[in-house]
Amino acid sequence: MTFTTRTPRVVAARRLQRRRDRDQSGRFLAEGPQAVREALAAGVVLELFGTGDALTRHGDLALLAPQVSPVDEEALAALTETVHPQGLVAVCEQIDVTLGAALAKRPRLVAVAAEIRDPGNAGTVLRTADAAGAGAVIFAGEAVDPYNGKCVRASAGSIFHVDVVRTGLDLVGDLQDAGLLVLATSGYGADDLDTLLDEGVLAAPTAWIFGSEAHGLPRELLDAADRRVRVPIYGGAESLNLAAAAAVCLYASARAHR
Amino acid sequence: MTFTTRTPRVVAARRLQRRRDRDQSGRFLAEGPQAVREALAAGVVLELFGTGDALTRHGDLALLAPQVSPVDEEALAALTETVHPQGLVAVCEQIDVTLGAALAKRPRLVAVAAEIRDPGNAGTVLRTADAAGAGAVIFAGEAVDPYNGKCVRASAGSIFHVDVVRTGLDLVGDLQDAGLLVLATSGYGADDLDTLLDEGVLAAPTAWIFGSEAHGLPRELLDAADRRVRVPIYGGAESLNLAAAAAVCLYASARAHR
Repeated sequence: MTFTTRTPRVVAARRLQRRRDRDQSGRFLAEGPQAVREALAAGVVLELFGTGDALTRHGDLALLAPQVSPVDEEALAALTETVHPQGLVAVCEQIDVTLGAALAKRPRLVAVAAEIRDPGNAGTVLRTADAAGAGAVIFAGEAVDPYNGKCVRASAGSIFHVDVVRTGLDLVGDLQDAGLLVLATSGYGADDLDTLLDEGVLAAPTAWIFGSEAHGLPRELLDAADRRVRVPIYGGAESLNLAAAAAVCLYASARAHR
Repeated sequence: MTFTTRTPRVVAARRLQRRRDRDQSGRFLAEGPQAVREALAAGVVLELFGTGDALTRHGDLALLAPQVSPVDEEALAALTETVHPQGLVAVCEQIDVTLGAALAKRPRLVAVAAEIRDPGNAGTVLRTADAAGAGAVIFAGEAVDPYNGKCVRASAGSIFHVDVVRTGLDLVGDLQDAGLLVLATSGYGADDLDTLLDEGVLAAPTAWIFGSEAHGLPRELLDAADRRVRVPIYGGAESLNLAAAAAVCLYASARAHR
């Protein structure tokens, strides 16, 4: 039996495209074979929807899912947001943990996305932090929902690899208590990244705080951090975009931690 | 007199949103006060369109433009592509130079965008390369038009700071002849960035070649380069996105060149 857009389970899953329904149900959607594979490996898939073609082509994934529901092309299109979803979408349990639980693991590298509202930027920070070996990515304050479809896609599977935390802006004390040096990024920071590298400062376990490009970091975070750090600009550009700045900072730490 | 959407000069300028008309005229559009300021500083503005409000608010820019044309809100909206263009858009002369002219200046850092078709990604590479102190950014092969509106906006003014070059894919020999070490980025590269840093390789004048995330680099470029370099992945992510990878590589060179 193939489900359609009118099948109640498809209707219910489709509602997870809305934040309110994600918040109420504690579930979210992950689309495409790569994300589905990572979600299965993380053990958080509740139901896998797929076209007959896709379920055949990705039989290894279908075998691992606790529940598999064949859907027609129209239902698949309704459940997914990309032009080429490659036939698969999974309903997953939300996986974020508390700040305390994440810090109890004593991560040596943490990324904080503070009030970052653009889901593509937030997902890219997730992906970059994972690549750099971060143990946790913290969405602080009025940040985007990490389970927003665009954020999940931009994370390219990394949302399933790191500890994801949602918390308020008053987190710096907890980071410091967990032994982390807290570095707030700012175009006007007193320290530049090269100086920190030269002085060996980045060898310490570190939490990097990144803000939105439009608004920068809230004053309270800048004041509470151990240092305010700017990425050096060697040419004529005024600044880097968020993805580039996060990559430069997180990889500087990763290299110092080797 | 205030121009409207039907004024011939507005009609002609609006056509520059299309690649064919940009190619034929050798002109392009730069919108918003920041880009207009950079374009004026580069001496390439032919005509500045603005609403009455914006021309008053940015009187310093209006004074510098060779020709100023007040437009109504509707005409401004037709000439711009963003939701909040802040009232200004300039018709500019295209500014790209030949590969030979760019290399004759002996730049110590060059970024090559090879067959990158996404204008946002290409503009981000321009911005990041400028921030890292690159002298030239080369659009090679079937790459996006650097004067595409989205690319100009993503460059955040950097298109006016660096030498922009458009050329074919057979450029590696010319880069090497100009004394540049040519490094091609690839997830499967034999050398990793950390090793190059440890060995001091990046102290040399360097040209970095970046490809699209979807397709990577053409075989001929990988083969012709001096080395094929991968950015190390310390965590669970499969790869970095293009903006992040370019930032990590270009900033590694910038630091080595200090």
